Amino acid sequence: MAELQVVGKRLQLVDSNEKIMGTAVFGTDIVLPGMLHGKILRSPHAHARILHINTERAKRVPGVRAVVTAADAPPTRFGLSIRDERFFAIDEAHYIGDEVAGVVAGDEDTAEEASRLIEVEYEPLPAIFDPIEAMKPDAPLARRDTAGNVCKHLEITRGDVERGFQDSAVVHEELYSLGHQYQAYIEPIATAAEWTNGRLTLWAPHQAPRTQLKVMCEAFDIPSGAFRLIQTYIGGGFGGKNNMHLCPLVALLAKKAGAPVRVVLTREEDFQASMPSVPMHIRLKMGAGDDGTILAKDVYIIADNGAFTASASGVITVAAMRVDALYRFKNVHVVGDLVYTNKVSTSAFRGFGNTQMHFAVESMMDTLAERLGVDPIEIRLRNATQKGDVTAHGWVIGSCELSEAIRKVVQVSEWKRKRGPGRLKGRGIGIACGMHISGSAAATPDGPGSSAQVRVHEDGSVYVVSSEGDIGQGAKTVFAQIAAEVLGVPYENVHVSQLDTDVSNFGVGAIGSHVTTMGGHGIRAAAVAARGRLIQAASDRWGCGEREVRLIQGKLVNSVSEEAMEIGEAASHYVNMTGGSRLLGEGHFRAEGISAPDKDAYGNVSLGYSYAAHIAEVEIDLETGLISLVRMVAAHDSGQVINPMFAEGQVEGGILQGMGMALSEQCVFKDGRIQNPNFTNYRVPTAMDYPEIEVHFVGKPDPNGPFGAKSIAEVSIVPVAPAIANAVYDAIGVRFTSLPITPQRILEALKAKDREVKGAEAELG
Amino acid sequence: MAELQVVGKRLQLVDSNEKIMGTAVFGTDIVLPGMLHGKILRSPHAHARILHINTERAKRVPGVRAVVTAADAPPTRFGLSIRDERFFAIDEAHYIGDEVAGVVAGDEDTAEEASRLIEVEYEPLPAIFDPIEAMKPDAPLARRDTAGNVCKHLEITRGDVERGFQDSAVVHEELYSLGHQYQAYIEPIATAAEWTNGRLTLWAPHQAPRTQLKVMCEAFDIPSGAFRLIQTYIGGGFGGKNNMHLCPLVALLAKKAGAPVRVVLTREEDFQASMPSVPMHIRLKMGAGDDGTILAKDVYIIADNGAFTASASGVITVAAMRVDALYRFKNVHVVGDLVYTNKVSTSAFRGFGNTQMHFAVESMMDTLAERLGVDPIEIRLRNATQKGDVTAHGWVIGSCELSEAIRKVVQVSEWKRKRGPGRLKGRGIGIACGMHISGSAAATPDGPGSSAQVRVHEDGSVYVVSSEGDIGQGAKTVFAQIAAEVLGVPYENVHVSQLDTDVSNFGVGAIGSHVTTMGGHGIRAAAVAARGRLIQAASDRWGCGEREVRLIQGKLVNSVSEEAMEIGEAASHYVNMTGGSRLLGEGHFRAEGISAPDKDAYGNVSLGYSYAAHIAEVEIDLETGLISLVRMVAAHDSGQVINPMFAEGQVEGGILQGMGMALSEQCVFKDGRIQNPNFTNYRVPTAMDYPEIEVHFVGKPDPNGPFGAKSIAEVSIVPVAPAIANAVYDAIGVRFTSLPITPQRILEALKAKDREVKGAEAELG
Repeated sequence: MAELQVVGKRLQLVDSNEKIMGTAVFGTDIVLPGMLHGKILRSPHAHARILHINTERAKRVPGVRAVVTAADAPPTRFGLSIRDERFFAIDEAHYIGDEVAGVVAGDEDTAEEASRLIEVEYEPLPAIFDPIEAMKPDAPLARRDTAGNVCKHLEITRGDVERGFQDSAVVHEELYSLGHQYQAYIEPIATAAEWTNGRLTLWAPHQAPRTQLKVMCEAFDIPSGAFRLIQTYIGGGFGGKNNMHLCPLVALLAKKAGAPVRVVLTREEDFQASMPSVPMHIRLKMGAGDDGTILAKDVYIIADNGAFTASASGVITVAAMRVDALYRFKNVHVVGDLVYTNKVSTSAFRGFGNTQMHFAVESMMDTLAERLGVDPIEIRLRNATQKGDVTAHGWVIGSCELSEAIRKVVQVSEWKRKRGPGRLKGRGIGIACGMHISGSAAATPDGPGSSAQVRVHEDGSVYVVSSEGDIGQGAKTVFAQIAAEVLGVPYENVHVSQLDTDVSNFGVGAIGSHVTTMGGHGIRAAAVAARGRLIQAASDRWGCGEREVRLIQGKLVNSVSEEAMEIGEAASHYVNMTGGSRLLGEGHFRAEGISAPDKDAYGNVSLGYSYAAHIAEVEIDLETGLISLVRMVAAHDSGQVINPMFAEGQVEGGILQGMGMALSEQCVFKDGRIQNPNFTNYRVPTAMDYPEIEVHFVGKPDPNGPFGAKSIAEVSIVPVAPAIANAVYDAIGVRFTSLPITPQRILEALKAKDREVKGAEAELG
Repeated sequence: MAELQVVGKRLQLVDSNEKIMGTAVFGTDIVLPGMLHGKILRSPHAHARILHINTERAKRVPGVRAVVTAADAPPTRFGLSIRDERFFAIDEAHYIGDEVAGVVAGDEDTAEEASRLIEVEYEPLPAIFDPIEAMKPDAPLARRDTAGNVCKHLEITRGDVERGFQDSAVVHEELYSLGHQYQAYIEPIATAAEWTNGRLTLWAPHQAPRTQLKVMCEAFDIPSGAFRLIQTYIGGGFGGKNNMHLCPLVALLAKKAGAPVRVVLTREEDFQASMPSVPMHIRLKMGAGDDGTILAKDVYIIADNGAFTASASGVITVAAMRVDALYRFKNVHVVGDLVYTNKVSTSAFRGFGNTQMHFAVESMMDTLAERLGVDPIEIRLRNATQKGDVTAHGWVIGSCELSEAIRKVVQVSEWKRKRGPGRLKGRGIGIACGMHISGSAAATPDGPGSSAQVRVHEDGSVYVVSSEGDIGQGAKTVFAQIAAEVLGVPYENVHVSQLDTDVSNFGVGAIGSHVTTMGGHGIRAAAVAARGRLIQAASDRWGCGEREVRLIQGKLVNSVSEEAMEIGEAASHYVNMTGGSRLLGEGHFRAEGISAPDKDAYGNVSLGYSYAAHIAEVEIDLETGLISLVRMVAAHDSGQVINPMFAEGQVEGGILQGMGMALSEQCVFKDGRIQNPNFTNYRVPTAMDYPEIEVHFVGKPDPNGPFGAKSIAEVSIVPVAPAIANAVYDAIGVRFTSLPITPQRILEALKAKDREVKGAEAELG
């Protein structure tokens, strides 16, 4: 491969200007000609029968254009995995925040005022909030339309787990528990919809076009061609905008009002009715040989689905399996239950279940290392996956620099000096590793891949149209870099469009770390196709064979006559050659060698596997329990990094979000109601909490990624929480098996430990 | 050719629902996130030096975001033919309505209020309004930045005109005069603009994308790739929205305000500052042999350009030449002068100069017939162009049913009975013929043609993206019919997008009757390409050769195994085959055998030539002069008509607009100011004036048009005014050589004739 000119460079965001100047149009900014505003009325009950809804007073409010309830909605059920969603509550509300009615008016205030005049008669029903309780035989049903509260059960076995435990020198078992983490995007969920001749157009800050396509077509019983999604700028998603239940509701409001309608959730609504991470209780049992080789792993997961399933079904599957590609686990057994409760639905969150399970396994690795008297570094290096491995689930590891990442963070963090007995009181250092996929074949069972178009305008500027969108992670920039690299044009001359599914198609979207890797291949293929047409145009102009024309550094060169032509000139000639068609390169990428898992959940699911090792240093005030993440050293194998500046940004963001998960973020429930649905009481890390962060990239080009790239966005959060928990253990000798590790919990743990020590001393005394 | 299934059928408009329900978004409806509103301050002087502009008071109005004058504008000159336009008046205002400044504010009222606070100090300069006066050597300059008032002079000679006149049995000479006809579209001119990263997007009800591209790139000195046009629905154009001077102004306002800006003209502004038809004085001399064969034609045109040129330069050329393809004129000589005056700029109007010259020539044909004692039908049949002719200017007539059209209207109108001496008093019947092109190679000198895309969605619906837009004439419907015909799918399953030049390209637009004919070819080619990909997908699915797959009545059929597949299924398979690319057929059509005229204005310029014959019956109240068009019988050769319902609608519209030209419509000027800039005083025909109209199509499929189609939109107005004038002559024996023929003029003419008759009687007496 020739030396890269644009890929791998620290280039600025193609859309930084719009973002800085405030002209970028986010979901909350959308206005449309004749647009009306909607407001949703939500259930104040966690579980209640709806006896009667009276909308008459609401309808009489001047300016109200429509009041919509389940009675006005199609009778369809829809959903991403399980069809357990419906438009508005039918007969029964399933959680506090469940949508009972919608109002459309000329402005938001009128819609809200009218929504308060809707009279709903409820009969409260027994509610169930704890998934463990919900699994008991005599538990009340969270939804009376299901046979039981377990909505998904899974079991996977590889190798011989019993034998593995028998062969182990140590076996340890522990229960780890993770709660609801809210995605905490800056922009709340917002959607605008319009119907034209039976076709629906949706404007939304949506992460995953194909996901919403499925849901909308099911919901309205319309064919796929009747739905168009125009992606707005997205003020953060982190999995929370993969499947917006608001979309079908707004589309229904628009249909009933006969006009475009927009709804923007308030922050409180967004907390109460979006889909935070899937809480899990993970009972993990692992055994290791004398040398630290992990010989068996047995897991039982109970996951809290909330009221509707959405992606939680996929999340529990990922939690069950993905970590087995981090280490050379051979004997594994996992059972999982996803359980309905009368709480907010849970779904995708950056890491998609991988974060939860990595917290358990990477905590366990330290525990096993301690019991074996092995260094935590040592046990990880011994088990680390290597390039060329085929994992227990059949994943083919095309490249893997996990060991190198571990060695890098150990060296940079001065692990050996800091871990030693001479460390400062209250200071601790901990390591954790993580891995993630680069696009999932499970998301595209019929054909994993991507598509794009690259147009070359008559002035030589390049216009990239992808079926994949940018959710703020810098995808447009990455696409511009790839197109610029292939065509040899200045990066500044490449423009990237917003996603419009009528122009391209429904891409998979920003799920499964798909966009740069799978999506990048489509861009590359489209740029190559555009190059072919430029050469065709130049050869037509020169009257020579196409083989004589080369594209060298953005110029077309006739290798015989040595004439040269700007690409804009060739693009102009192409327009004339074709009677007015702008030069269009179509790119198709069909990933070979990967496929959706088979019925036994076996098969190579992703284009590439990214790895990371993080070392966290924490400082704990032993008097107050206050904890600070002081420093995080991260080493990542993301293959060839397309733009190191953004990749660093992703890692930094992942560390901050993982730090929130570890130390402060959790939705607090009381009787099914979130008690902290705002940024005052739900504490995300701020600039004040920012640790020293060092990011190193240790990857080599992956054989399967575009220009050798692998993913970065999700893997960056995966090791963070366990690295911090391991550092906390190093600092104070307390093993936290649930999160967040708040100062109050630290203080309580220190006091308990103190009592324990004193008790032991007394006993000894 | 197999029998047509969709083409040729009377199908309803694809966008009738949006239009009826009021959801179609026109230029005046556009709203954009963060959009501001602009207002233009205009000169009250026909010609004045601008000594000073003080914008301070305007800038201090709360809510004002920008006040813009020439001082803030790029120094560039721009223009469609002659670069004589600029943003705002620099030092000098050229007509009443000339743009002096622009204001941007949060709402229109504030912008208007602030615009009134701009203080402009003018020094009036001598103004010139009459183009004949303006040509005199001592005439004042209409613009002090030109060397003289003539901005274009043309002269074309074919054959031997002197010899032709010598050989003639009769020679007649006459001066015909035509004034300003306003396009009278329902929607006034409106534009919204936004700049993003140096790229400009314009939303406008614009007829001619490529035309505006040229102007915008010149005006802002930006490359073509930096300009994007999104065409809104268009509330009528008729040539008046071919080149909107408002576009660069609004783009400048948006640039200065740093936000999207929209400007909507008031009706008065639209009258005073848009571009009505080009007024012409036509001195026409024609000679004919005994049998009525026209042997020579000599023309001198003086055309009133107004302040800026725009398309008037093309209009005078068309007026000079096009009629020579109606009849077999061999010896022709024409001289033309296009002259600046201090009046509103003039430009394209349905017929594009052809209307003006047809009025002259078709009036003259009747005069010559009378002088020769030949029936007006006879002289036309004798000279009518025939299929296979190559005209004096080198136009190759692929199909021509003019003679058949004449015979048809003669028969249907009962010409022979009504023209005879037994007719009712005050009733008259007159014939005129007309022809027009089907797209002009002059508009695309580098390569006449068109391009389009046809997508097949996974549900089998078809989505058509053309580089050509719909201006309300039904282009979307025609495109849908063509795509449905090729793919064999139900017409209702075809959707057609609004034009977005970032998705397709800058089409030529609705000028030169281009869209159905040239544009239709692109659609057809794209549908054929989509069909090819459907076959490719089906053969991949079946594992058979592509030759074995046929597309029969919207289904893919394996001719060997006799399996069948819906096209949606093939389209889905294509998506999977390609990793997510929706099936896209790209269509290119490059017209062969036509080209822009050479330096002698010679060459075959169009894909096809449409012909029409109209017979008008008028009734005149001899007491009051009131005139009614009672009946119009029209026969058209537009080749294969794609949708007879809309073609009839076009002809009916053309007849109404031609009737306005003939009987009531004219801008009345006083000292350079239009006295009737509103629909109260500028009288367009209304439903009350609607005559009995009969439309017949007599064409045969043209060898060059898509499915044999030729144009219809413009030719439909061409014969109207002369047919009416000829009927008036038949009714009262008065030859009107200027328009409109108002009751007042009829009454005056009748009185004068009466005096003349009485005088002659007295003389004889």
